Amino acid sequence: MLHLDSDYMAGACPEVLAALTATNLDRTTGYGTDSYCDRARELILDACFPEGGRARSDARVYFLVGGTQTNSTVIAGMLRPHEGVIAAATGHIAVHESGAVEATGHKVLTLPAVDGKITASAVAALIAEFKGDPSRDHTVAPGMVYISQPTEYGTLYSLDELKAISKVCREAGIPLFVDGARLAYALASKANDVTLPDLARLADVFYIGGTKCGALMGEAVVITDPSILRHFTPLIKQRGGLLAKGRLLGLQFEALFTDGLYERIGASADRLAALLASALRERGYREVVASPTNQIFFEIPNEDLDRLGKVATFETWGVPGDHYTAVRFVTDWALTEADLAPLLDFLRK
Amino acid sequence: MLHLDSDYMAGACPEVLAALTATNLDRTTGYGTDSYCDRARELILDACFPEGGRARSDARVYFLVGGTQTNSTVIAGMLRPHEGVIAAATGHIAVHESGAVEATGHKVLTLPAVDGKITASAVAALIAEFKGDPSRDHTVAPGMVYISQPTEYGTLYSLDELKAISKVCREAGIPLFVDGARLAYALASKANDVTLPDLARLADVFYIGGTKCGALMGEAVVITDPSILRHFTPLIKQRGGLLAKGRLLGLQFEALFTDGLYERIGASADRLAALLASALRERGYREVVASPTNQIFFEIPNEDLDRLGKVATFETWGVPGDHYTAVRFVTDWALTEADLAPLLDFLRK
Amino acid sequence: MLHLDSDYMAGACPEVLAALTATNLDRTTGYGTDSYCDRARELILDACFPEGGRARSDARVYFLVGGTQTNSTVIAGMLRPHEGVIAAATGHIAVHESGAVEATGHKVLTLPAVDGKITASAVAALIAEFKGDPSRDHTVAPGMVYISQPTEYGTLYSLDELKAISKVCREAGIPLFVDGARLAYALASKANDVTLPDLARLADVFYIGGTKCGALMGEAVVITDPSILRHFTPLIKQRGGLLAKGRLLGLQFEALFTDGLYERIGASADRLAALLASALRERGYREVVASPTNQIFFEIPNEDLDRLGKVATFETWGVPGDHYTAVRFVTDWALTEADLAPLLDFLRK
Amino acid sequence: MLHLDSDYMAGACPEVLAALTATNLDRTTGYGTDSYCDRARELILDACFPEGGRARSDARVYFLVGGTQTNSTVIAGMLRPHEGVIAAATGHIAVHESGAVEATGHKVLTLPAVDGKITASAVAALIAEFKGDPSRDHTVAPGMVYISQPTEYGTLYSLDELKAISKVCREAGIPLFVDGARLAYALASKANDVTLPDLARLADVFYIGGTKCGALMGEAVVITDPSILRHFTPLIKQRGGLLAKGRLLGLQFEALFTDGLYERIGASADRLAALLASALRERGYREVVASPTNQIFFEIPNEDLDRLGKVATFETWGVPGDHYTAVRFVTDWALTEADLAPLLDFLRK
Repeated sequence: MLHLDSDYMAGACPEVLAALTATNLDRTTGYGTDSYCDRARELILDACFPEGGRARSDARVYFLVGGTQTNSTVIAGMLRPHEGVIAAATGHIAVHESGAVEATGHKVLTLPAVDGKITASAVAALIAEFKGDPSRDHTVAPGMVYISQPTEYGTLYSLDELKAISKVCREAGIPLFVDGARLAYALASKANDVTLPDLARLADVFYIGGTKCGALMGEAVVITDPSILRHFTPLIKQRGGLLAKGRLLGLQFEALFTDGLYERIGASADRLAALLASALRERGYREVVASPTNQIFFEIPNEDLDRLGKVATFETWGVPGDHYTAVRFVTDWALTEADLAPLLDFLRK
Repeated sequence: MLHLDSDYMAGACPEVLAALTATNLDRTTGYGTDSYCDRARELILDACFPEGGRARSDARVYFLVGGTQTNSTVIAGMLRPHEGVIAAATGHIAVHESGAVEATGHKVLTLPAVDGKITASAVAALIAEFKGDPSRDHTVAPGMVYISQPTEYGTLYSLDELKAISKVCREAGIPLFVDGARLAYALASKANDVTLPDLARLADVFYIGGTKCGALMGEAVVITDPSILRHFTPLIKQRGGLLAKGRLLGLQFEALFTDGLYERIGASADRLAALLASALRERGYREVVASPTNQIFFEIPNEDLDRLGKVATFETWGVPGDHYTAVRFVTDWALTEADLAPLLDFLRK
Repeated sequence: MLHLDSDYMAGACPEVLAALTATNLDRTTGYGTDSYCDRARELILDACFPEGGRARSDARVYFLVGGTQTNSTVIAGMLRPHEGVIAAATGHIAVHESGAVEATGHKVLTLPAVDGKITASAVAALIAEFKGDPSRDHTVAPGMVYISQPTEYGTLYSLDELKAISKVCREAGIPLFVDGARLAYALASKANDVTLPDLARLADVFYIGGTKCGALMGEAVVITDPSILRHFTPLIKQRGGLLAKGRLLGLQFEALFTDGLYERIGASADRLAALLASALRERGYREVVASPTNQIFFEIPNEDLDRLGKVATFETWGVPGDHYTAVRFVTDWALTEADLAPLLDFLRK
Repeated sequence: MLHLDSDYMAGACPEVLAALTATNLDRTTGYGTDSYCDRARELILDACFPEGGRARSDARVYFLVGGTQTNSTVIAGMLRPHEGVIAAATGHIAVHESGAVEATGHKVLTLPAVDGKITASAVAALIAEFKGDPSRDHTVAPGMVYISQPTEYGTLYSLDELKAISKVCREAGIPLFVDGARLAYALASKANDVTLPDLARLADVFYIGGTKCGALMGEAVVITDPSILRHFTPLIKQRGGLLAKGRLLGLQFEALFTDGLYERIGASADRLAALLASALRERGYREVVASPTNQIFFEIPNEDLDRLGKVATFETWGVPGDHYTAVRFVTDWALTEADLAPLLDFLRK
C-alpha cells in the first residue's frame, strides 16, 4: 500500500539519521548551546545571507521541535497584548492548531484566501480600516502578518507578491512572519522564484521546516532583526519548545544544509507530485488547486474513491460532496518513483 | 573530559536508536495514532497495571515531547481557571520552567521543601487554611498537587509518604500529579519502595520520563481516570507537544519497556552515582542532600573547584559560598564505570 | 444638540440615582455579600422564574460591572481549554471587545450573520462538521454558543428561533449564553415574543444589562444551572469584575426590577426609536436593518450628513460609501419626545 | 453597630455624590473621552507635576473601575511574556486577587516582607541572582517591581526607601509600579514624607485609589512615561476595566482633586484610626504592626473578642491563635468621631 497522506509519515532521510547515529554517544550541553547547533546556525545563515555583512551578523537562528509550537511561540513573542495576527482564513494557525495562538491570548485576524494565499492589498485594506476606525481601541489591532510558503494548498507566493506584502508590512510598521514548515518543497519548485535570501530580506521572522522536510523533527527559526524578538530562548522554554537534547535539532539541520540536501529532498518530492498530478489530470480528474509543490489536490468521483483507496491512502479535503470528493496527495523525500508506479499504472488503466 | 552536568547529554540508548533506525522508512499515520504508539501504550499499561481489570482499561497513555511541556499541559488541562497547583518551592515547575505554568494562567502555590520534598501534613494545612479563609474567593484555590519522583534533589518519596499525600488529595477532592522526568532512577534505586503500580494507584496522573532516561526525547503521561483529563489530545496539540511523527515517541517507549530496559538504565546510573558519592564522601566533602538516585549534591571547597573542573564538568547548585560551592553531579545510562575511573582516581589521590 | 450616539451617554435613571443617594451612608460588607444584592437577586429570580420551584432555587445571580468583562468572564469560566465559543461574525465579542475572549485563551468561532443573527441550522452544521472532522483534535472544539438579544443590529431572536438554537445546544451538550446588554429594549419591544422566563428556560447563562438600560453601570448574570459555572465569584474577582462596593450594583438592579422600571425604560426608548425611524423612512432614507428596538440603522446620502450633523450626533456604521453612509441612531431611557422634536422637525422639512 | 471591616463599606463622600447627581442627565461620549475626564486628568497632573514642563506633558492619566483590574492590566501591559513582577509576599497581587496576575500569564516573584514592605537591597539581590544565574533562560525574569503605598499593613515607605527602590529599578532597567489603592491615607498621614510629586518622579506607573478613598469606585493610573505602556486604552478595554459611562470616573476624581478633598478624606480617617489605636494600646492590647494610616492591627485576647464584637465589626487577620487573635480595624472618610465614641467608651471601661 502506498501512503500519501502527508509528508511526516516516514522517519528521517538517511543523511540525517546517519548524523544522529554517528554522534549518539557524544556528550554535549543541552538546550541548543552545543557546537552542533552552532554549526547548523552558521550553515543556515550562510544560505540566507550569502553576502554576509551586517544583515548576517544581526540575524539569529533558533531551533524548536515542531511547527504549531513555533508558530505560537513566535507570535506570542512578537505581539503586544492588544494585537492580533493577520492570516489567511485557510492558514494553519487559523484552522489546524487547536487554537494555539488564541491560547497565548491573541486573535487570528483572518482574510479570505484564494488558493491559500492572501494579497498585499487585502492586508493593506485591513490595516487601513483599523487605523481609520474611530472605535479602534475596541478592536484587535493588526500586529503582524503570517503567511505560509508554500501555503497549506501547496501554492507559492511569487517574489513580487512577497515583496508587495513585505512593503505593506514595513509601511505599517508591523512584522512579517513566514511559516516555512514545507519550505524545501517551495525552494525546489520549478514555479518558485523566492530564494532563502529573498525570505531573509523580506520577512522579519521565518522558519525553515525540518519535520516535514526530511528531519525526525525540528524547525529552524530565522530572526533577521533580533530586536523584534528579544529574549526568545526563555519564551521557547516557557512554551515547551526547547528540546533538552537540543543538539538533535542542530545535527539534523547541519545534515540538511550540507551538500544541498534540503533542496534535493524538496526537488524529488515535487517531481513525483508533478508526475502524479499529470496522471490524475490525464485520467480526467479535476485539479482543485494548481499546486507546484508536493501537495496536490484533486476532485475524485465518489465511485472511484474505494478502488483508489485500495492502491493508496490519502486525505479527504473538506466535506465530501454528493458526487465528488476533494482529496489531497502528498509526496515526500522518502518516496521513490518505484513506490509511485502502482498508483500511476492504476490511473492509466 | 568527563561530563556529569546532566542526564540529557548523550543521545539515546542503543536499543532505542536501533528501533528508530530499523523502522525509519516505515510509513505511518502521525500524531500518535500509529501501531508503535499503541504497542508502547500496552507495554506501559502492563507495567502499571499488572493485574489488569477495570483500572487498566480505564487508564490512558499519551506521549509528549518534553517535560516542561508535559507539566504545563497536564496542569492547564486539570485546573479550573481560579485554581493553582501546590508544589514544593524547589519543584521544577516553580523554578526552572520559565513560568510555563503561569503562562497558562495558573499560580504555583509553593510549600517549603525539605530535600526537595513536601509533606502530606503541609498539603493538608494549606488546603485547610484555604477552606477556612473567609476571603477565600479572593485567594487562589488549591486545585491539584504536583510532586516529582525522584525530586529535583534526587530524593525519593517513600511509599508511606506517597500514600499520605494521595490520601490528603483524595479527601480534598483534588488530583495528584507526579512528575517522573527521571522516574527510571527512582524505580531502580535501592532506597525505593514505590513501584509503577503504586504510582498508578496513588496518583491521578503521572509521567514516565524518556528524555532523561535513555530516549532522544519523549515523556509518557499515564492518566488513571480519563474523566479528569478529557480531551487531552487537542490540548497537547494546542500547547505544542503533539509530535507530528508521533511514532518516534511510541517506538522509543516500546524499546524502553521491553526486557526491563527502563529500570536497567536507571540501575546503572544509580550505581555509578553511589560509587561517585562514596569517593566524594571519602575525600571528606560534605553531602548536601542524601540522594539515592542519579543526581548527587556535594559541597566542594572553592580551592578544589578548579582542579576538579579539569577532570569533569558539573553544575554549580545555587549561589557559590565564600568557602564552599554546592555542585551537582549527574550520571546517566550512557556512562560506564570506565568513564568514571579518572574522576574516582583523582578523588582518591 | 441632540446626542444619539449610544445608550450610555447619560447617568442613571432617577429611581436608580435616588436609591444610591438614599443609602449612601449605609455601611455594608463588600463584594456583593450585602442585603441589597440579596434583594436584587430575589427580584430578578422572581422575574425569571415566576413559578418558583426547583428551577428558581437552582438558579444563581451574580453582578458584574460591565459587559465586556461579563462576556469574557462567563466564557472563560465555561469553556475547557481546547474549546471556543460560537458567535455571529458581527457579535460584540467577535468585533468590539479588543480581543477580550482571546485574551482568556479561547477562539471565537464566527458564523455569518444576517442582520446580526445566526441560525440554529448554522450552529448545528458547524458542530456536525467538527464532529465529523477526522482531524478534529487539531481544530478548536465548539464549546458554547453566544448570541445577543437584542443583537448589535437591534434585531431580535424570535421565541421559535431561540428555541431552535437552544435545542441544538442541548442536543450537542454545549451551553447557550445570551448577552442581554440591551435586554430592556428587547423585552419592551412590540416585536418581541421572548420573555425573561423564556430566556431562563432556554439559555444556560444570560445577563440582564444595566449599563445601557438605566443604571450607572452593572450587569446581572443569571446562571440557571450552577453546576455549569461553579466557583464563579473567584473568577469574577480574578477578571476584575467584582466591585468592592458591590451593593451599588444590587441597589441599582433592585430599583430597575421594582414596579416594572426596567421594561418601562425599554418601552420609552423603543417608542422614540420607532418615531425617529418613521421620520427617516418618510424622508426617503433606506433602512439598513429593520430593527424593532432602540438602535436604528439608516443610509444617509452623503450630501445630507453635514446638515443632519448640525442637529444631532450619531455614529457612522462601517466604512462610508461613495454616495451613502450608514449611520446608527440610538435612543435611551433619558431621551424624551421633546428632545427628539428638533430632529423630527428637521427631517420633515 | 459600628462597622470597621474595611474602607469600602459606605458609598461616596458627599462632594462626589453631588457631582454625579448634578451632571446625571448630561449626555457625553463614553469610555473616558469626555470633558469631565479631561478635567480630572488636568487636576491630577497639576497635583503630580506642580512645576509643569516636559514631565507633565509626557505623563498620561487613565481611569479604571477597580484595583485588582488596575493591577493586572498595568502589569500585563508592562511585562514581556517571559517576565514576572517582584512583590512583597504579603502584597495584594500576591495573595488577594484570586490569581489575577497569573491569569494574564505572569508569575509574581515574592520577596519576604517586613510589615508589608520590601527593601531595595532585597530587590537588588533578586535581580542580581537572576542575572548571575547560568540557567536564567529557564527562570522567570524580574520585569518590574510592585509595591503598595500604604501597604496592606497600613505602613508607609519613607521617601528614602522609595528613592532606594526606584534607584535599583532604574539601574536594572525595569519599571516601578506603585499601588495606591489607599493613597489618600498615606498622603495625609503625619508619618508620611512621600508626596504625589515624589511618586510621579520616582515611580514609572502608580495609581491613585478612588474606591477606598471616597469614590463609589474608580482608580486613576498615572503613567509618567507613555512609552512604557503604549496602547493602554485597548488593554483596559480587553481586561474589562473601561467603564462605558467613563465620565463617572472623571467626575469623581474631579471632585476628589478639588479643594483638597482627597487629602482631607485621608486625614480624617487617619486621625480616627490613631484615636482608636491609642485606646486599644491603653487597654493593653498589643499592636501587631505600627501603622500610621487608616488600617490598624491589634492582638485581641480571645476572651474579649465576643464582647468587642457586640460594639463593632472588624476582620480577623490570619489564623486565630490559641489565646489571641489578630484583628484589623479600618476607618474611612465616612466615619466620624461620634461614630467611634461607643467603641472608645467600651475600651476605656
